[in-house]
Amino acid sequence: MSAGQEGWLAIAGLGPGDEALITPEVREALAMATDVIGYTPYVARVAPRPGLTLHPSDNRVELDRAAHALSLAQEGARVVVVSSGDPGVFAMAAAVFEALEAGPLSWRSLDIRVLPGITAMLAASARAGAPLGHDFCAINLSDNLKPWPLIEKRLRLAAQADFAMAFYNPRSKARPEGFARALAVLREACGDSRPVLFARAVCTPQEALRIVPLDQARPEMADMRTMVIVGSSQTRLIERPGAAPLLYTPRSAPEGGA
Amino acid sequence: MSAGQEGWLAIAGLGPGDEALITPEVREALAMATDVIGYTPYVARVAPRPGLTLHPSDNRVELDRAAHALSLAQEGARVVVVSSGDPGVFAMAAAVFEALEAGPLSWRSLDIRVLPGITAMLAASARAGAPLGHDFCAINLSDNLKPWPLIEKRLRLAAQADFAMAFYNPRSKARPEGFARALAVLREACGDSRPVLFARAVCTPQEALRIVPLDQARPEMADMRTMVIVGSSQTRLIERPGAAPLLYTPRSAPEGGA
Repeated sequence: MSAGQEGWLAIAGLGPGDEALITPEVREALAMATDVIGYTPYVARVAPRPGLTLHPSDNRVELDRAAHALSLAQEGARVVVVSSGDPGVFAMAAAVFEALEAGPLSWRSLDIRVLPGITAMLAASARAGAPLGHDFCAINLSDNLKPWPLIEKRLRLAAQADFAMAFYNPRSKARPEGFARALAVLREACGDSRPVLFARAVCTPQEALRIVPLDQARPEMADMRTMVIVGSSQTRLIERPGAAPLLYTPRSAPEGGA
Repeated sequence: MSAGQEGWLAIAGLGPGDEALITPEVREALAMATDVIGYTPYVARVAPRPGLTLHPSDNRVELDRAAHALSLAQEGARVVVVSSGDPGVFAMAAAVFEALEAGPLSWRSLDIRVLPGITAMLAASARAGAPLGHDFCAINLSDNLKPWPLIEKRLRLAAQADFAMAFYNPRSKARPEGFARALAVLREACGDSRPVLFARAVCTPQEALRIVPLDQARPEMADMRTMVIVGSSQTRLIERPGAAPLLYTPRSAPEGGA
């Protein structure tokens, strides 16, 4: 790339996995890109073509990846950083802005855009019904970047607020015990019958949905490809003949509150 | 439509307003539909064509509209109920399931799908940076369908949990005082300097973004087309020469918690 060429950086969401859920805006950015950067399985979702360099990288190197993307854009490249789902929800957008803030001032003059995508909780919600149809919260259960007591505090306050709760990154091989503790806190705070949706690999050929009451929820029902949604006190199931039940939270909350 | 024809119902999200943010999945459903049902300004976003009947209706008739859609699908129509943003977030999906649960058992055998879209908070977040890059909650500030004390309780608990907060329907002509009360509660719970994003008509030609500290936030900065996002204690601004500042919440939270 020659100096003087107009580089840019787009931080784009590829959605949960189905091609039909990628927005035309993201498609267009990918079509114009010279470089695509991201975690290996997400970069693998972008078709190679002449003129496009793919830069797959490992998990847990988000800041290095972000600095690399900013450097390339400054050199004149048209860079797309790809995330699964939406880049602004537990994904690369915040990492790029952390790198931008810590980096050379010249990076602040770059043309940077965030291109939204269908985030996992909305895809999982759509596949199951509408469990997020009333007030809700989204919590990253990974304690890589925050202390466990803060996660536990948020779970208890979210239960008190009677939010439906969407959990990202519920469980990994490196931290098998965290999700078991989260379920124990939730049982204490919400009782046994609250419906829990385990939505694995939503909108991919491996999709598997399962809804159980909280007292039957087991840590091994989730892995890192699973989105977990715990209903509010109002969330309910509609049984259907010959089809999976629908899980939804009505729009209204009763007088008297949670 | 003749009996025996296979009807279906898709509850689809049109995204925040830009055509480039409508998923191919939703486009395809609209292309196959015989009937499109929804709030008048959303139905107006669907191009008329031969064979397609548009059914625009007024605000606040969500259950009638949902029952109408279910009836048409049962008669063999291919029906798309359209919402702005995502249908599962403060939109038509929950209303359709409320009508389904209250209606004839035969409705439960219908082919019903929810097709996700880019919800307003994710579009607003993307345009401003990444204010929802860490744990957050989404609250509908309208008290049409829930008591005001519950809203206030949720605001206080969300502040205690140190969530970033996304507010839908902050203010209407019918309820001008609610948002002023919400801002007062938030100032008390979060202090004066917390950044507040007012994102009006995001991803439309009328888009206007404004970021102010909480003590300068005024009720009249929002209307029903405005998404309001209040940062957590960690949300920060990156100033840029000749461009709007970037608002983002880092991925990590400090030891010691909120």
